[in-house]
Amino acid sequence: MADAAGREFFTTRTVADALAGFRPRRRTGTETVSLAVALRRVPAGPVTAPHPLPGFARSTVDGYAVRAADTYGVSEGLPGYLSLTGAVLMGAAPDVTVAPGSAVTMPTGGVIPPGADAVVMVEYTAEAMPGTIEVVRPVAPGEGIVRADEDARPGDVIVPGGRPLRPADLGMLAAAGVTSVTVCRKPVVTIFSTGDEVVPPGTAGLKPGQVRDATASALAALVADAGGEPAFGGIVSDDPGELEKALRAALPDSDMLVISAGSSVGARDETANAVACLGPPGIWCHGLAIKPGKPTLLAECDGVPVIGLPGNPRSALVVFRLVGMPVVRRVGGCTAPPPEPSARARLSRDLASASGRLDIVQVKVNAGVAEPVFGLSALLSVLTEADGYIVIPEEATGLDAGSEVNVTLYG
Amino acid sequence: MADAAGREFFTTRTVADALAGFRPRRRTGTETVSLAVALRRVPAGPVTAPHPLPGFARSTVDGYAVRAADTYGVSEGLPGYLSLTGAVLMGAAPDVTVAPGSAVTMPTGGVIPPGADAVVMVEYTAEAMPGTIEVVRPVAPGEGIVRADEDARPGDVIVPGGRPLRPADLGMLAAAGVTSVTVCRKPVVTIFSTGDEVVPPGTAGLKPGQVRDATASALAALVADAGGEPAFGGIVSDDPGELEKALRAALPDSDMLVISAGSSVGARDETANAVACLGPPGIWCHGLAIKPGKPTLLAECDGVPVIGLPGNPRSALVVFRLVGMPVVRRVGGCTAPPPEPSARARLSRDLASASGRLDIVQVKVNAGVAEPVFGLSALLSVLTEADGYIVIPEEATGLDAGSEVNVTLYG
Repeated sequence: MADAAGREFFTTRTVADALAGFRPRRRTGTETVSLAVALRRVPAGPVTAPHPLPGFARSTVDGYAVRAADTYGVSEGLPGYLSLTGAVLMGAAPDVTVAPGSAVTMPTGGVIPPGADAVVMVEYTAEAMPGTIEVVRPVAPGEGIVRADEDARPGDVIVPGGRPLRPADLGMLAAAGVTSVTVCRKPVVTIFSTGDEVVPPGTAGLKPGQVRDATASALAALVADAGGEPAFGGIVSDDPGELEKALRAALPDSDMLVISAGSSVGARDETANAVACLGPPGIWCHGLAIKPGKPTLLAECDGVPVIGLPGNPRSALVVFRLVGMPVVRRVGGCTAPPPEPSARARLSRDLASASGRLDIVQVKVNAGVAEPVFGLSALLSVLTEADGYIVIPEEATGLDAGSEVNVTLYG
Repeated sequence: MADAAGREFFTTRTVADALAGFRPRRRTGTETVSLAVALRRVPAGPVTAPHPLPGFARSTVDGYAVRAADTYGVSEGLPGYLSLTGAVLMGAAPDVTVAPGSAVTMPTGGVIPPGADAVVMVEYTAEAMPGTIEVVRPVAPGEGIVRADEDARPGDVIVPGGRPLRPADLGMLAAAGVTSVTVCRKPVVTIFSTGDEVVPPGTAGLKPGQVRDATASALAALVADAGGEPAFGGIVSDDPGELEKALRAALPDSDMLVISAGSSVGARDETANAVACLGPPGIWCHGLAIKPGKPTLLAECDGVPVIGLPGNPRSALVVFRLVGMPVVRRVGGCTAPPPEPSARARLSRDLASASGRLDIVQVKVNAGVAEPVFGLSALLSVLTEADGYIVIPEEATGLDAGSEVNVTLYG
């Protein structure tokens, strides 16, 4: 089935297709934030050094600033002697020049005085007599010195664009005097829960058939982990039209919409109908070749990504981690996602899988052995008990006991 | 050298010794936070399910609630026929009982009606005539059903103590109606920078010899990553007595003190003197067998951990990541630290190392090859350019080109 533009409806796609091909055009704008709150924020572009760093030639050791030539050929057996003509103080300009045959006391980090081209470590010197030091090891020009622009030259990229800021990046920016950074605004991801049976987590007494909304809280956490700003759209009943109304109301203030769909076929159709009406180009796929998580809907409405997740909390979280979090990152300008923790392990038992489908199996890892945690896809405990998951690729029909597998670990 | 209690001063210890043996007794108290802000917080103890989950027997499929015995022996060739006596609605108690020979329409997630012990999927049925369905596949008792306590029985631990809360944990808590959690208070880690040459990052024009404080911003980020609450103690001059005064003032409101020490020998002695006076039992080690990072001081003063870091920003960050972050976690009640991202790679070149010392080498990783990033320990750019680091263990005297190494990746 296809619309006027030839776009196919109701197609099932592979996860690889979704990651490569589902690319809604929405991107957040930029804002400027102070360094104190910039950790993990995504710079909108590369940040360059405004001036050389560290800014002046510094000593890397405690010792004496010298002319390297004055130390050539010295040794334990044949020390050189230099007259001590002054001392450099921390945080101050030197008031002395190093002339041939002389040395100046240097603290680590002090400014190299004019005339000096090396610093000899205090360990290789001795005070021969008041005002004269003995040097027992030669130094080469540049030794014991960090150059004025060795950490960065003016214009050097000190922090790349698109990569979430790491602790060391903040240090580098502080060193350069860059105390605020232009970053991509966090994508606002509005999360809807649907289903006549779903009630807020704080509901005290449940009526028969009611369940508390587990998915929204967990999805909000995954959105935050991906650098997004979760917003709650609330719980929408299964009444036709209600969901479309709610989505339409949230669209102007959202960079992405996520619906944890009702789990019945009817509720899923309702989600698809609501999303299809929301804006062009509309639904991109209406099913993913993944277990758990097949009833996943991906759409782009007026540029905004819309993800309809399966009704089972566990399936919803598995799919959002694999397919939704990369979309949040992309909308928020993150082109270099942080690495995920992982471990190599041996599988404890055979696992069957259907070819053409990605299988996500939750596992516990103990002493290098990955033990699958089984259970219905309706069970959240399968996720909370697992240390991570393994992926059985589309082309495989299963994995043998003893196979080496890569476990993506929860952190 | 030893004090009256026989405690050794000025000793150098290995990193392994420090991780195992440096265990100041300070622990934070507890506080109760709402689920909305509980991600990565550390539960003070295990959280148990107050009631069974999901709370009622639910259908896992769209189909018909039946008595399993009524389907025994049915097949495509020999279907069974059941009379349709009602339908279960989402979020409502069933108003119908499944009698022998009858079936009730079930949505996924609906309450299993009395009398039924299985749900047959809609795919294996057909409407034979109005009010009668045909079943072509038998179901076993329990099939298509999640039991009322299958996700958790009352009293089951749904979230362990000491492990930072993950997204799925928040979902599980929400499902159980647990909307606030008692967690360990975040440890307040007060960070001091010392040195007459150090000025705040926002300082516009530097005088000769001055450098901006790079370490404090980066340390604050590492503290936050370890679950702590960074506080800035400010920049303290090298004047004797100033640092002790500043540390003493911060001690009552801090769970941990971190000093990025001056880099010269004199400044380091100053830090040691200040820390030694702060409270018993005092200094635990005055040097670590690690490169970079040897001039590290570890102390416990009135139970509070105190870490004196090397003056070089890069050395300070390397040591704090390895030795300081575990202390922050322990003080904050985290007994199950999150896994760190890592990668296996082949070393691009020989690396020399001294036996008896842990070497931390920053590397870039490309196509499975780890390429060391060299540079003076004064250079922060070595850290910001690296993708991660490798550890050359104490017993090794180096690593050969082509060796397989484990790279801890920055995230």
